[in-house]
Amino acid sequence: MMGFELVKDIAVSTASKIVMLVIDGLGGLPGRDGKTELESARTPNLDELVRIGSAGLTQPVGPGITPGSAPGHLALFGYDPIAYNIGRGVLEALGVDFDLKPGDVAARGNFCTVNTNGEITDRRAGRISTEESTRLCAMLDGQEIDGVQIIVRPVKEHRFILVLRGEGLSARLADTDPQRLGVAPLPAVPAVPEAERTARVLNEFLILAKDALAGRAAANMFLLRGFSGRPNFPAFGDAYKLKPAAIAGYPMYRGLARVLGMDVRPTESDVVGEIAALKRDFANYDFFFLHIKGADAAGEDGDFARKVAAIEEVDRIVPEITALAPDVLVVAGDHSTPAAISGHSWHDVPCLISSKWCRPDGLPKFGEAYCRLGSLGIMPATALMPLVMAHAQKLNKYGA
Amino acid sequence: MMGFELVKDIAVSTASKIVMLVIDGLGGLPGRDGKTELESARTPNLDELVRIGSAGLTQPVGPGITPGSAPGHLALFGYDPIAYNIGRGVLEALGVDFDLKPGDVAARGNFCTVNTNGEITDRRAGRISTEESTRLCAMLDGQEIDGVQIIVRPVKEHRFILVLRGEGLSARLADTDPQRLGVAPLPAVPAVPEAERTARVLNEFLILAKDALAGRAAANMFLLRGFSGRPNFPAFGDAYKLKPAAIAGYPMYRGLARVLGMDVRPTESDVVGEIAALKRDFANYDFFFLHIKGADAAGEDGDFARKVAAIEEVDRIVPEITALAPDVLVVAGDHSTPAAISGHSWHDVPCLISSKWCRPDGLPKFGEAYCRLGSLGIMPATALMPLVMAHAQKLNKYGA
Repeated sequence: MMGFELVKDIAVSTASKIVMLVIDGLGGLPGRDGKTELESARTPNLDELVRIGSAGLTQPVGPGITPGSAPGHLALFGYDPIAYNIGRGVLEALGVDFDLKPGDVAARGNFCTVNTNGEITDRRAGRISTEESTRLCAMLDGQEIDGVQIIVRPVKEHRFILVLRGEGLSARLADTDPQRLGVAPLPAVPAVPEAERTARVLNEFLILAKDALAGRAAANMFLLRGFSGRPNFPAFGDAYKLKPAAIAGYPMYRGLARVLGMDVRPTESDVVGEIAALKRDFANYDFFFLHIKGADAAGEDGDFARKVAAIEEVDRIVPEITALAPDVLVVAGDHSTPAAISGHSWHDVPCLISSKWCRPDGLPKFGEAYCRLGSLGIMPATALMPLVMAHAQKLNKYGA
Repeated sequence: MMGFELVKDIAVSTASKIVMLVIDGLGGLPGRDGKTELESARTPNLDELVRIGSAGLTQPVGPGITPGSAPGHLALFGYDPIAYNIGRGVLEALGVDFDLKPGDVAARGNFCTVNTNGEITDRRAGRISTEESTRLCAMLDGQEIDGVQIIVRPVKEHRFILVLRGEGLSARLADTDPQRLGVAPLPAVPAVPEAERTARVLNEFLILAKDALAGRAAANMFLLRGFSGRPNFPAFGDAYKLKPAAIAGYPMYRGLARVLGMDVRPTESDVVGEIAALKRDFANYDFFFLHIKGADAAGEDGDFARKVAAIEEVDRIVPEITALAPDVLVVAGDHSTPAAISGHSWHDVPCLISSKWCRPDGLPKFGEAYCRLGSLGIMPATALMPLVMAHAQKLNKYGA
């Protein structure tokens, strides 16, 4: 791969503006009439962009690899998603606007239910309400063991974050979640000797927590996964000499943008609110990561028609973006989420670049089959940012 | 490149079944009417697979590189054929079911004819019969020099294997085959100091062997190539969490499969016999490497029409494979063998994946020109296994 480093060397700051519209879970699979969700959607505005712009398909991680949301986005931002790996705990913490400090160790937690033998009977504790989870988190929060603060914050329903804060901690701990029913939650086990103290502290906490939750019929224990420390990635703005704003209604994408040093802007979580935020901030930044979640959520639910509708909703706001006259508008997805699979998939993802420097592909419709014929070809998603930067005339010539 | 290692981390064992049908030497070049062998062949069954499946072209090693059979297959199995290199001697030995031990040094031999000056006049000794070669091998076999056993076993016609077995041997010897007529076979020359003893032992044997064969009008000497030791590659089954069976009528492909730890199944060497073997074993494995040789052999012989017929023969058995209802059927070639070249070539190789998770390409015919338009694009052959695994739903999501 060409790599991030080269782009970093030749990037220049200019007045031009880039909007990266990420339609989460954009790619799909054919429904009954042989067309994918995107191909089925009425998208006159996106179709016009693809007619005069350049289209293609992106591979987020590599052929056959189904990406999680973080690798999918990192690739779109030009970070090799294999080299730049973010732990689940960190993402979850950043997604609830938790201010992680260097040295913190974060885990994703979820309340579960155990029987009198301590064996798990429900890994999600019947998806207890966020209100109840908030009360339980408050009860567990604020302990200090051997100089280590233990912070517990609710996320949503049965999910919460646990953060260990103190000197000399290590995130190299195995999950306490055994990923199956009928067995007890695992103790914290260090993967390396440096993590022994962290494991000891955590195991002491697990005993206290078990006592505190005992007597409850459900949500009487919890499972921890994805222990991780805040990663130290090159800042997106420094790497590309951009002043980037992130407009995302969902916590996780805000969290990811924050890790990359983007300025996470206030926004309502719906499409209309996000567009209002974009307009508000348009004068003050030169790169906008605009994240729209609806298509992915519908795909995850296996709802073909709702995914079509979510894409059509995005299409309707496209004129509001083009009215702002960004120098480059790129429309992409972090991965495919076919309704047929009810989850993320490995399939290549449609994308388009619209700028005055495109060789227009003249394709009639934004969709998987046409994008395959586009001038961007089938490319690693990490290639998108260098292309976008070039179209924004923000990259100097390489070599004499 | 994404690499084998990532797939290894996310592979899961499931009940789904994969058939990889390798049509050796599948790719070709146009004949008189402008169509390749595959394009000329009547292949209604493969055409139907390509209509509802995904097609593309694979590059076995890299643009412009003509692969041998081993690199061509290693790439199909997801092993970077540059990083994973198998010596010719080892392959030949494994191909005749010879049980190579760690530390053995194997070479591919062929009987040749030399004149009274000791100069080669026929590099293949008039392709003597396997029976005659077997007698000669028995005569040469079983010597011991300086504690090193010298094992000689026939392969086919003029070809045989020579194996040195003993302590402290090295395979770093140059070929004794000068690859041209009119000169004498070369002595064994060590490429590194550690191989000096091995060369000395072998050169003593060459003197004894020359005496033993002297007086014969033909097949009165031999040439050795591809000195090599048994490689220690990650087992295919471990890497992909598959239980793999190899069904291959030709020794070399069985040998390669054995090196990768596949279970090499008994089979007749013709297509009908191989399909019978597939049916017999279908319940007991979840990955089937089914190797069919005919197209390559015809291409090597420069016989366009016979290659067309060989491909048509494969097409006729496709319904017997699809009747088994594998979850994924992938049809690929290890390299191109155009009749026009009478040998392997560097040209990209048609391939197709058929599974219920394909975005159907809707292409009308399995062939080089149409595959270029397919949704798999032009891809490294090493990308095929991750894709196949994804279609079989045997890969977990990467990252949160």
